[in-house]
Parts: sequence; structure tokens; C-alpha cells
Amino acid sequence: MTLYESGSDTIIVDCGLACPDEDLLGVDLVIPDFTYVERTVESVRGIFITHGHEDHIGALPYLLRTVNIPVYASKLTIGLIEGKLKEHGLLGKVQLNVVAPGDRIKAGCMEVEFIHVNHSIPDACALAIHTPAGVVIQTGDFKIDYTPIQGDVIDLARFGELGSKGVLALLADSTNVERPGSTPSEHTVGDSFDKLFRKAGNRRIIVATFSSNIHRVQQIIDCSARYGRKVCVSGRSMVNVVNTAVELGYLNIPENMLVDLDLVGRYPDDQMVVITTGSQGEAMSALTRMARGDHRKLQITPNDMIIISATPIPGNEKTVGRVVNDLMKLGAEVIYERMYDVHVSGHACQDELRMMLGLTRPRFFMPVHGEYKHLKKHSDLAISMGMDPRRIFISEIGKVLETDGVKMNFMGTVPAGRVLVDGLGVGDVGSIVLRDRKHLSEDGLIVAVATIDSASGTIVAGPDLVSRGFVYVREAEDMIREAEELTRSVIEDCLTAGSWDWATIKQRVRDELSGFLFSRTRRSPMILPIIQEI
Amino acid sequence: MTLYESGSDTIIVDCGLACPDEDLLGVDLVIPDFTYVERTVESVRGIFITHGHEDHIGALPYLLRTVNIPVYASKLTIGLIEGKLKEHGLLGKVQLNVVAPGDRIKAGCMEVEFIHVNHSIPDACALAIHTPAGVVIQTGDFKIDYTPIQGDVIDLARFGELGSKGVLALLADSTNVERPGSTPSEHTVGDSFDKLFRKAGNRRIIVATFSSNIHRVQQIIDCSARYGRKVCVSGRSMVNVVNTAVELGYLNIPENMLVDLDLVGRYPDDQMVVITTGSQGEAMSALTRMARGDHRKLQITPNDMIIISATPIPGNEKTVGRVVNDLMKLGAEVIYERMYDVHVSGHACQDELRMMLGLTRPRFFMPVHGEYKHLKKHSDLAISMGMDPRRIFISEIGKVLETDGVKMNFMGTVPAGRVLVDGLGVGDVGSIVLRDRKHLSEDGLIVAVATIDSASGTIVAGPDLVSRGFVYVREAEDMIREAEELTRSVIEDCLTAGSWDWATIKQRVRDELSGFLFSRTRRSPMILPIIQEI
Repeated sequence: MTLYESGSDTIIVDCGLACPDEDLLGVDLVIPDFTYVERTVESVRGIFITHGHEDHIGALPYLLRTVNIPVYASKLTIGLIEGKLKEHGLLGKVQLNVVAPGDRIKAGCMEVEFIHVNHSIPDACALAIHTPAGVVIQTGDFKIDYTPIQGDVIDLARFGELGSKGVLALLADSTNVERPGSTPSEHTVGDSFDKLFRKAGNRRIIVATFSSNIHRVQQIIDCSARYGRKVCVSGRSMVNVVNTAVELGYLNIPENMLVDLDLVGRYPDDQMVVITTGSQGEAMSALTRMARGDHRKLQITPNDMIIISATPIPGNEKTVGRVVNDLMKLGAEVIYERMYDVHVSGHACQDELRMMLGLTRPRFFMPVHGEYKHLKKHSDLAISMGMDPRRIFISEIGKVLETDGVKMNFMGTVPAGRVLVDGLGVGDVGSIVLRDRKHLSEDGLIVAVATIDSASGTIVAGPDLVSRGFVYVREAEDMIREAEELTRSVIEDCLTAGSWDWATIKQRVRDELSGFLFSRTRRSPMILPIIQEI
Repeated sequence: MTLYESGSDTIIVDCGLACPDEDLLGVDLVIPDFTYVERTVESVRGIFITHGHEDHIGALPYLLRTVNIPVYASKLTIGLIEGKLKEHGLLGKVQLNVVAPGDRIKAGCMEVEFIHVNHSIPDACALAIHTPAGVVIQTGDFKIDYTPIQGDVIDLARFGELGSKGVLALLADSTNVERPGSTPSEHTVGDSFDKLFRKAGNRRIIVATFSSNIHRVQQIIDCSARYGRKVCVSGRSMVNVVNTAVELGYLNIPENMLVDLDLVGRYPDDQMVVITTGSQGEAMSALTRMARGDHRKLQITPNDMIIISATPIPGNEKTVGRVVNDLMKLGAEVIYERMYDVHVSGHACQDELRMMLGLTRPRFFMPVHGEYKHLKKHSDLAISMGMDPRRIFISEIGKVLETDGVKMNFMGTVPAGRVLVDGLGVGDVGSIVLRDRKHLSEDGLIVAVATIDSASGTIVAGPDLVSRGFVYVREAEDMIREAEELTRSVIEDCLTAGSWDWATIKQRVRDELSGFLFSRTRRSPMILPIIQEI
């Protein structure tokens, strides 16, 4: 999410979510902190979305349920946003505007122009934001595809035109900056599919890919048609996106080609192609369930050829590997290597990034979309092209960049950061809850409960120790019993010594128990003393 | 760990440990199940170790503390094993035998021959096990390096000699079977170091690598000497391995070259090289601490060039990436890409694996060391060379392969599997404990405690709800209070209805609370009802 402010006008570009890192235990989603937007909502003229991927639209429902701001995006992007708003019961309550590439939307003293780009989802756009201080270009995610499956080549001419007139600043996608050369065209994948479909012979074919990669899905459908196969779609998000794409005319499926998942068994293997989610080895995805043998409608057999048409996102290598192993153990052939070219990236590599810098010739440059190492490398790339390092800004979430069209400087910060979503809770899982979850996940816990008669100062029930996730209790009965005795003597000591402060007693129980258990096990379970009083 | 049995004799090859997958929450190590070894210990003539990596020697202390079996290995490997046994207080209690390549050790009716191979640790060996049924070759981990840093090229001639006389079975390393061609020589890394040391100019150089890769460490030292730099060693395992290697003559460090970590500050940056652990982004490693800025003796500055001389092991990509980002944010240059060739693998690629198959021409083939997908691919490689698929066996832990020298078949299983080590506990963390840890890590827990007077059937204290890792309590006070009221009414209902069975009451509390909390939060914390009685 990026905010542009000029005079008394603000616009928002994109509003995405992130999947939680593995240290965010139990967290479902990570969304931006909207505090600043909510505070300045009066000035916000619109939300402008570059394309329909989750990391650009996913947090919209969380923002739009508290503020009412019109949204502008291309047709498919709006279609995907509608699906999200429906899930959150917000459809009809928000003003959604379909924009075509080339359109310019007035937003107070600014104007936002949509420019067609290529990416791994159709209808992706860069934005040229015409401000009183000059034109700022935000590329969104992009690549240069000279032979796209559908639609046009990225509008290089318009970038060049803007560049020749003068671009104040460029914010460009850095995802693939570590890769030399150019990203291959989506078309190359089609050739690989063709070879593999031929190789499959009379076997069933299962292809896993990202549901939003509609051009990829189209190529699988085209290839299936050439080989006289029916197509079945599996996985919730795949079904949703395919429906939306067909409705809006982004996917052409020959009549009578789609087969319901329930009817797959009626067709011989050599007449069937299944398109499924799960290319990242996601735990609950259709492909993972097939691999584990617990998909309700599809069983993997040695007569299956499975193509994983995706590269693991960093962090998913191991889960994807596990799915591949499991599918192979069921006897299927699995195509997952790069040697078959069954996947191309949606992001620009070094040569394309150089071209974008060369076309737009910005006065200031801000690499975006990527980890710090990517932003740094993109900055180095610009410097190697002759850009003055003082005109390059690597920013952080919340930092404010100010420009008058001549100079640009960091100017303080606004409230910003990540907000964790867990179930229905937005922001109620913070560092303390996460620290506790981490502690519990590593060594489990011991609850030590005792009831004390406050009149006599004696223990009338307990102490009882209950453990979870600490040790297999049946094998550690003696230790638990010793720990109970220890707890009893600590509490009695305190009571005898006249120390009736529950907080003190609990602290002593915690200290003594943790010392005892560590000496016995070298583990440090969370210890939760609970004292009740009658 | 592999067992060979012939007549009344058994030998064990290797005894390694694995690092726990991320789903083994809180587990420190994974070792083999020794049940079968302990049961047949009378017949075991020796443990033969191929090389000194953790996944081949790491579980030895856990085996040797219960059984007394002589160990045979090369000099460096024994040195590293001694270090392990010392930590476990077992040194002197076990018979350790240093073996040289070419040696043949009699083990009952079998004989074990050590054959020199190249790998990412010196003194690695394959084993040729001469049995009454024929010769079985287990390669261990290997590569073919025609220009090794120290010592000889892998003893290809001996493999060929055995092959021409007839090899019954080959068990070969499958780690790199997905990679075409051959693994480059360790020497190529030296050339890269030279270039980078020149490029470093007057900056300090920090190189992170695997401590056991002594040839890599030697190259860094040689390069440091050429550029007139002192060397400092950082990280516990790096210090240990360097000491052992120097002692045994595997590492040549010029006099006065080593500098104590405490004195690094006294030397100008351009005279200093730091060799450190942490190339995998391990949480507690020296490099990670430097990146976080909490290394006690070393601060990263913009005048540092950091070389990560390793490739992330699958699963570590994200943590390594985070360390790289953090180091860059401190202003250092970080070399981590493949383009600089700062790392080569220690495992054979496809061409080398073909050569091993071609040299040994085994009657039976068993791909080992790798995930299922690797074993399958290695099997395909052998088939593509003309091997009969019926003579290839992909086994699993615990499965028994039987041969009379002519035929080979799977013949049942023996007790085997993985045993989890957590702190001092070996095997006391099982599926229930792990399931609880996982549950706790995702949604935390609620403890609901009440004390009941069994005479009157009334609640005399509580119910009190204590939560950890569930929700930030201060923001959810009302919900917790409602949940306490709900608990009270559930218990009172039970007591009024005459149901005095604590198990039933607890179950009802659990059901009602979990329904209530899920409807409010869409989370399912672990619910732990505890009822005390006076």
C-alpha cells in the first residue's frame, strides 16, 4: 500500500496482504496498519489497484469495512475484488469503478493514468500519477512479454513518451532483480505443455498452477483441446477464479469441455486433464490432499502424469518437495524441474528493469516490491546505468518521502506497520501472544493448581500438575509426582512463613518448578501456577 | 544407519542424526531407533563410518551409551567422533580404531574395505563390504574431484577393479541426481575467493561456511596469506573443527596468522579475515548474531565484505535471506549469489553417478541418501544405462533386503524409525506431545479452573479462566468474563442434574467453551478444564 499526498488530496495505490512468516504462529494473514488512512480519510480521493493478486488487493475488505473510498481498477481486477467483498458481506456498499488502460482518473489535484503491462495475471497496469510536482510512475508488478497469450505487449511506447516529457520519480518492481537477462514469454510454457501432453500418451494429466495465472490456465485448456481431452477444475480458488474469468471473457473454454469433479471417473485417463491448486504444497490444497491420498474425489495412480507448473516461493521448497515425494510414492510421474520449462516468472529480470529505467529516465528512483537485498540490488543496477546514488531512495514502511519536483527527501514517518489477522481478530494477536505461542510450541506447559483455605492457611485441594506438550506423561509419572510434592512444599513454606501474597507464591512455584524440571529434562515448559482461595 | 547381516555376524555402517523438520516443534535432534541393534548386539562386530558429517556420526553417542561396539573410521573422522564422545562423557569407554584407505577390517565372516573418495570433508571413504554372497559397495557421500585441495582423487581404479571382478550390489549417494553434468572441483572456489579478496580492497572480509568443510577453510586461509591478512575464527563449531583439524594435520595455518576474537579490533580492516559459522542462517550462529547486531565481539560496518560460501539447504532459504537483508541494512556488501562461484557441492551429479554405475557394474542397485524423488530419479538414471528395473531396489527405513548372491528380495521389516531427542529426553516426545505443541502454537490455550465442595455440590472457588497465546486479554476482558459465566453455568447445570462425574463435566465445559470462543473469534484454543474437589 502506497499513499500519495498533494495539497489536500490523497490517493492510495494497492492494498495487499502478506502470508505470515513461520514465526507468526497461528496467524492467518498480515495486513497493513490503516491508522494513518483512517485519520486522513477525508482527503482520500480513491484507491487505485494495479492488478488482482492477493498481495495487491487482499487487504481491501479490511480497509473498506471501516472507510468508504471509491476503488478504481481494470475489469478482471474489479471482478476479483467483487469476489472478496462478497465473502466479507461488503458487496454493494463500496463504489467499484472499472478502468481501461489509457484512462485517466481525476483525483483532486492529481490524475491517475492506467498503463497496460504484462504480468502473470491478465489486466495488470502500471500507474502514472500526474501531480502538480511532476509525474510519478509506479510500475506495479510487471514483465515484458512480446508474445503474450492474450492482449497486448506492455505499453512501452507510453512509458517512453512519459520519459521524454520528464518523469519525476519511478517506483519499480524489484522481485527478479537478481536474475540476469529477460523473463521468457508465457508462450514458451505452451510448447512444454505440448511436448508433455504428447509424452503422457494414454495417461491422465494433472497440472497444478496458480489459480490467478489465467493465461497459464488458458494454455492448458488449449493444449487439452488439441489432444482431445476434457478438463476438470479442482480446488476452491481455482474454481472461483476460472468462473470469474469465464464470466468476464478472460478465459475461452470450448463448449462441453469442462467436466464436473464428480464425473472424472467416468472418463478414461487419456481423455482427462485436471487443473488444480496446490503448486506451492499448501497444506489444505487439492494437490496436497491427492498426494496424501485423502482427496475425496481423486485418487492418484501410476497412470497419472502430474505437472507442477510453478516454482516454489522462497520458504515453500520443503513442502513442495514433500508433495512431490508423496505423489511419486503413489507411482505417478511428476514433472517439477526447470528443465521442462513448465513455468515462467511474471516479473521483470535485469534487462527488462534496465529498459524500464531507460524508457522513463526518472529524476528520482525508488526500488519497491522485494526484500532489502532486492531493493539494494535494483539500486545498484540504476547506479550502474549512471544514476546519481543521491537520487535513489530505499524506503521502509511508514517513511515519508517529500518532493517539490526538484528535490526529494525523507521527512519523518507516519503510523504504519503490520497488523495480524487470526480468525476474526484483527490486531488482537501481538508480540506477547506470539511469544507465548512460541514458548508453548517448543516445550509445552505445566499448569500447577492448588486451592487454599484462607482462614486456616492450608492447602485444601491439590496441588495438581497438568501438562500438555511437555513430555509423554505415562513415562514421566515419577517426575510429575515429585514436581507436585515440590509445589506443595513451596506453597506450604510460603504459608508457614506468613507470606500470603498470591503473586509471590506463584512466582516461587514458577522458579522452583522450572529449576527442577530443567535439571531433569533440559526443557523449559511454560509454568502456569493457579491458586484458588476459599 | 545401515546394517549388514551375514550368518551370525552383523556390521553397522554410519550412525547419523537429522535436524528436525519444522513440524517437530521443540525437538532438538532426530536419531535412529536402536531397538533392533540393541536386540542383536551380540552379533555386531563393528560400526564402520564413511565420513565425519553429522548425518553420518551424530547419533553415535546415543547408540554407544547403551551398547559397546568398536568403531572404525579414518583419522579425521575419529577425531571428530572423539569430540562428540567427550561432550557425552563417553570418551575412553569406547574402542575407536583409525583406519587408512585401502585397509580391510575383518568382521566375522565379512571384511570391510575402506576406499578413498572426495567429498566436502577430508578423509571420506566408500566401503566395499566383502560378504560370502559377494561384494557390496556403499559409496557414502561422494563426488569426483580431479584437482582436490589436499589428498588424492577418488580411487576410481579400485572401484573399477571391484567392478571387473564382480560387484553384487551398489548403494550410491543420490543427493545431486537432479543436477546434470559434474560437480565442479573445490579448486574453482579458490579462484573466486582470490577475485573477491582483491575486490575487497581495504575492507574487512568475513566468510561464512560449513565448519566441517576443511578444504574450504584451508582455501580461505591460503587466500588470506596471499593478501597479507590475519585470520580469526568465530562460532563454536568452527573453533572446534579448526582445532581438531590443525591437531591432526588436516589444516595448515601459517604461524602468527590466527588472531583471537577478542583482539580483532586491534587490526585494521584490510588486515583481517573472519571465518565464521552461520552460512545456513541458523538462529544462534555467529553470523546471525552479527546480522542482528548482538554479537558481543564483532560489529558489522559498511567497511565489511561478507561472503556466504554455501548454498541454503532446502528449507533454509528464508532464514538465509533474512540474514543477508539484515547484513545489507548495516551497510555491508554481501556476496551470496551463485554468479561468484563461492560454493561447490560435495555430492556427485548425474555424470559422476553414471561413472560410478559404469565402474562398478553392480548386479543389484539401491539408490540411497536422498528424498524419494532423488531415489526414483537415480533409479531412472540406472535404467537409462540399461539396468534391469527388477534389479533396482528403493527401500525404506526398516525394510530388509535379502540376497543369496544371485537373487535379491525384500523380506519383511525390523523395528526401525526415528526417535526424537528434546533436551535430555530421548524418545519421550511422541505424536501426542507434538500434536499438543502444534495445537498450542496455533491458537494458544485456556485453562478453566474451579473448586467444588463435594459435600454440598457447589462451586466454592472459581471458575477462573487463564489464557496464554490465545488473545490479548486486556482487549478481550468482556469475552473472558462471559466465558467464565458460561463455565459456571455449565458446571452448575451438571451438579444440579446430579451428574457428579468430573470427566463428564470437563467434557461439557470443553465443548461449550470451545463453541463459544470459536463463534466469537474463529479460533480453537486448547481448553484445559481443571476441577478440584474439597
